[in-house]
Amino acid sequence: MQKIAVLGYGVVGSGTVEVFYRNKENLEKKAGEPLDIKYILDLRDFPDSPYADKFVKDFDIILNDPEVTVVTEVIGGIKPSYDFVKSSLMAGKSVVTSNKELVAKKGAELLSIAKEKNVNFFFEASVGGGIPIIKPIHACLEANEIKEIAGILNGTTNFILTKMFRDGMGFDEALAIAQQLGYAERNPAADVEGVDACRKICILASLSFGRHVYPENVHTEGITKITPEDVEYVDSHNAKIKLIGCARREENNEISIGVFPAVIKDESQLSGVSDVFNAILVRGDATGDVVFYGKGAGKLPTASAVVSDIISAVKHTKTSRSLDWQDSEQSFIRPFERFVCGNYIRLLANNPDETKSAVKTLFGDVEYLTSKSRKDNELAFVTGEMTEGEALDAMNRLSEGAEILGRLRVLDY
Amino acid sequence: MQKIAVLGYGVVGSGTVEVFYRNKENLEKKAGEPLDIKYILDLRDFPDSPYADKFVKDFDIILNDPEVTVVTEVIGGIKPSYDFVKSSLMAGKSVVTSNKELVAKKGAELLSIAKEKNVNFFFEASVGGGIPIIKPIHACLEANEIKEIAGILNGTTNFILTKMFRDGMGFDEALAIAQQLGYAERNPAADVEGVDACRKICILASLSFGRHVYPENVHTEGITKITPEDVEYVDSHNAKIKLIGCARREENNEISIGVFPAVIKDESQLSGVSDVFNAILVRGDATGDVVFYGKGAGKLPTASAVVSDIISAVKHTKTSRSLDWQDSEQSFIRPFERFVCGNYIRLLANNPDETKSAVKTLFGDVEYLTSKSRKDNELAFVTGEMTEGEALDAMNRLSEGAEILGRLRVLDY
Repeated sequence: MQKIAVLGYGVVGSGTVEVFYRNKENLEKKAGEPLDIKYILDLRDFPDSPYADKFVKDFDIILNDPEVTVVTEVIGGIKPSYDFVKSSLMAGKSVVTSNKELVAKKGAELLSIAKEKNVNFFFEASVGGGIPIIKPIHACLEANEIKEIAGILNGTTNFILTKMFRDGMGFDEALAIAQQLGYAERNPAADVEGVDACRKICILASLSFGRHVYPENVHTEGITKITPEDVEYVDSHNAKIKLIGCARREENNEISIGVFPAVIKDESQLSGVSDVFNAILVRGDATGDVVFYGKGAGKLPTASAVVSDIISAVKHTKTSRSLDWQDSEQSFIRPFERFVCGNYIRLLANNPDETKSAVKTLFGDVEYLTSKSRKDNELAFVTGEMTEGEALDAMNRLSEGAEILGRLRVLDY
Repeated sequence: MQKIAVLGYGVVGSGTVEVFYRNKENLEKKAGEPLDIKYILDLRDFPDSPYADKFVKDFDIILNDPEVTVVTEVIGGIKPSYDFVKSSLMAGKSVVTSNKELVAKKGAELLSIAKEKNVNFFFEASVGGGIPIIKPIHACLEANEIKEIAGILNGTTNFILTKMFRDGMGFDEALAIAQQLGYAERNPAADVEGVDACRKICILASLSFGRHVYPENVHTEGITKITPEDVEYVDSHNAKIKLIGCARREENNEISIGVFPAVIKDESQLSGVSDVFNAILVRGDATGDVVFYGKGAGKLPTASAVVSDIISAVKHTKTSRSLDWQDSEQSFIRPFERFVCGNYIRLLANNPDETKSAVKTLFGDVEYLTSKSRKDNELAFVTGEMTEGEALDAMNRLSEGAEILGRLRVLDY
C-alpha cells in the first residue's frame, strides 16, 4: 500500500482526486498494489467534500508521515510550492507536479535532489496538459538525437489567434471573448505576452538537450501586436499565425531558442491546430517529425497527466535515469540575433517602386503577398531565411524610405 | 552489462543495429549500465559488415546463451518468428518485436508467457513505426478510460489516397507510383486490402480495451474500389477519404471495430495527414482527444522504436503490469451490422426526383454534394448516423430505382 498526498485543491487538485478515485481499481492493477490518497493540503475548508477527512492545513503533517511516498504539488507558483517540493524530495518522497513555473525555474536543482535521494520528480502535466509529451520524449524517443522541438504551447493565445483568423476579429475583441469563456485570466499578460509558452519551451528544451534553459535567457514575444491586416496577408499566403515556442540544436554545442508569433504554412501539422488545442513537434534524427496533439489545459486533461505520473512514481521507486538534465549557464544559448528564420514584413512605402528595389537589394528574392483590404503604397512580403541580426539590419535600412507596420518570423515545420 | 540479440538483418534489423551503435553511449547512460549487441541472426552472410563477427545462423546459440537478456525479433511473419519469440520468453529473456502480424495473432499468449516468466514482451514498433503510441497508451493515458481509438495506420494506402486527391489520379495509377517509389510491394494486397491496418487496429484495440481482438473477427475493407468520381464529390464536401482503422467502446462490455475507407471532414486532425504519414487518435474520458502523428514506417523510424523498447526491456527487468491484455472470444465484438456511422452514397437514378423522395424516406435529411464532373442523373449525398444494417437495408431498397455506384462510411473525428 502506498499513500499519496495532494497539495492544493484548486482546479487541477480536485481533478486529480476525482480522476484518481474514478479509476482507482484499474490504477491499482497497473501499479500492482493498493493505493490511496491520505492527505489533501489546502488552507480552505471543504466540509461537504466526500474527502473532508483527508484535508489538512499543515504541510509538516504530510512531510513527517513516513506512509506518504508520493507528494503531488498542484498549487502552482514558486511560493510555497518550491519549499514543499524540495523538502518532500529531501525526505525521500517522490514528487509529481503540474507546476511549469517551478520546473522551468528550479528543474535542474530538484532533479538533482531527486537523484541524490533516489526518488522521482515527475512533471508530465507541466507541458501540454493532457498530451503525453515528457515521457514520450525521454522514454520513447531516446534512441534519437533530438534536432529540434517546437510547439503551440499556450491554448489561450491559440484561441485568440483562431478567432482572429476565422472571424476576422481584432486582438482586443478576441481577448475579450477568451476572457468571457474563462480561457483567459482577467490579467492576461502571462498568456498573451508569451511568458507561459516560454516556461514550457524551457522545460522541453532542457529535457531534449540535457541542460537547463532558464526562462530569463529566452527571447520572448507575445501576440499583442498582431493586426487584422497581418492576418489578412498571411491568410492570403495560405498560412496561419501561431504563437510558437521552439528550440533547435546548433553547431558548437549551442541551442537556438525563442517564443514569438510565427507564420506557419497550411501544409504544416501545426497550422491546423485550432482553438485551445496544443501541439508539439519533435524532430528526431532517426524518427523524423513526430507530432503530439491534444488539449493543453483543463481540469481533467491535466489531472489525467498528474495521475499517470503518480502511477509511474509508485511503480518506479528508484530514480529515473532518463528524465534528467544538468544545471547550466546561459553561454550554451546562442544569442537571438543569430536565430535563423524567414520574415514576413508589411510596410507603407513613400515610393513603392523604389522600396521594391531596396527590398531586392536587402532581402534578395521575396514573395509579395496580396490582401483584399490592401492600402495604397502598402507592401507585404515574405523573405528567405536569414539571421535575426541580418533581418533587423535590413529592416532598419529599409525604414529610410518606408514605415514598417508589421513583422513576423516565418518558420518551416 | 546486458547483451542483446537481433533476429533478422533486413531493413528494420540493420536499422536497429545502426541506431543502437550510433547512440550507444547515450543509451547506456539511460539504461544505467553497459550494453552490447552480441548476436545478429540471419541466414545470409555479411562478410563486409562491421558487425560480421556477430552473425550466427543457428537460433539455439542465442537461446542457450544466458548472457543474452533481450531478444529483438525483426524478421516479420509467423514462421519462424513465433517459435523464436515464444522460446525466448520461455527461457526468461525479454523480447522486443516490430512484428505486427505476430502481435495481432499471438499477442495474448505471448504476453501471458512473459508475465509467467516475469520478463517483458514489447512491441512499440508494430504500430505507427517511429510514432510513440503503445507506451503512451499504457504508461501515459492509464488514468483514462479509453472510449475510442482510430487511426491512419498504413502509409502505402495513405500515399495512394493523397495522390488521388491532390493529383486527381485513379487508384491504379497512384498504386503504380507507390510501387515505383518503393512504398508499395509488388503484390500490394496486404496494404490496399486493409490487412496491415487491420493487424494494427487489433493491437491498439487489444491494448486499449484489455481483451485480445483477433484480425479474423474484424470487418476489413480496402481502398481498391474508390473512384475519381468519389474523390471529386468528397473533395467538394471539404473532406478527404482515409483508410481508417477504428475501435470504440460500446455498452454491455462490447466493442465496435472495423477497417475501411472513410470520409473525414477537413476540420479533423486526421484529414491533414498526407503521403506516407500515419496518425492515431485516442479518445480518453479525462484527456479528450489526443493525436499522435509521424512516419508510420521506414528503416530508421521503426528502428528508433525498436531501440527504445530494448532500453525499456533492459531497465525493467520485471514484467510490465500495464502492458497487458487477456485472451478473449469473438463474443465481445459487436456484429458489424450494428456499427454506427454516417454514409456517403453515390448513385445513378432512373428518375432523380423519385429517388430524392425515396432517399428522404429511407435516410431522412441528407446533404447533397456537388462535383464539376457530375453526370446527368447522378446523385451523391451524405447521411446522418445509422447502423450498418440500417444503411445496407436502405441502400437495398433504394437500388430498386437507382444504381448505387459508390458508398463510403463517414466518420466524425
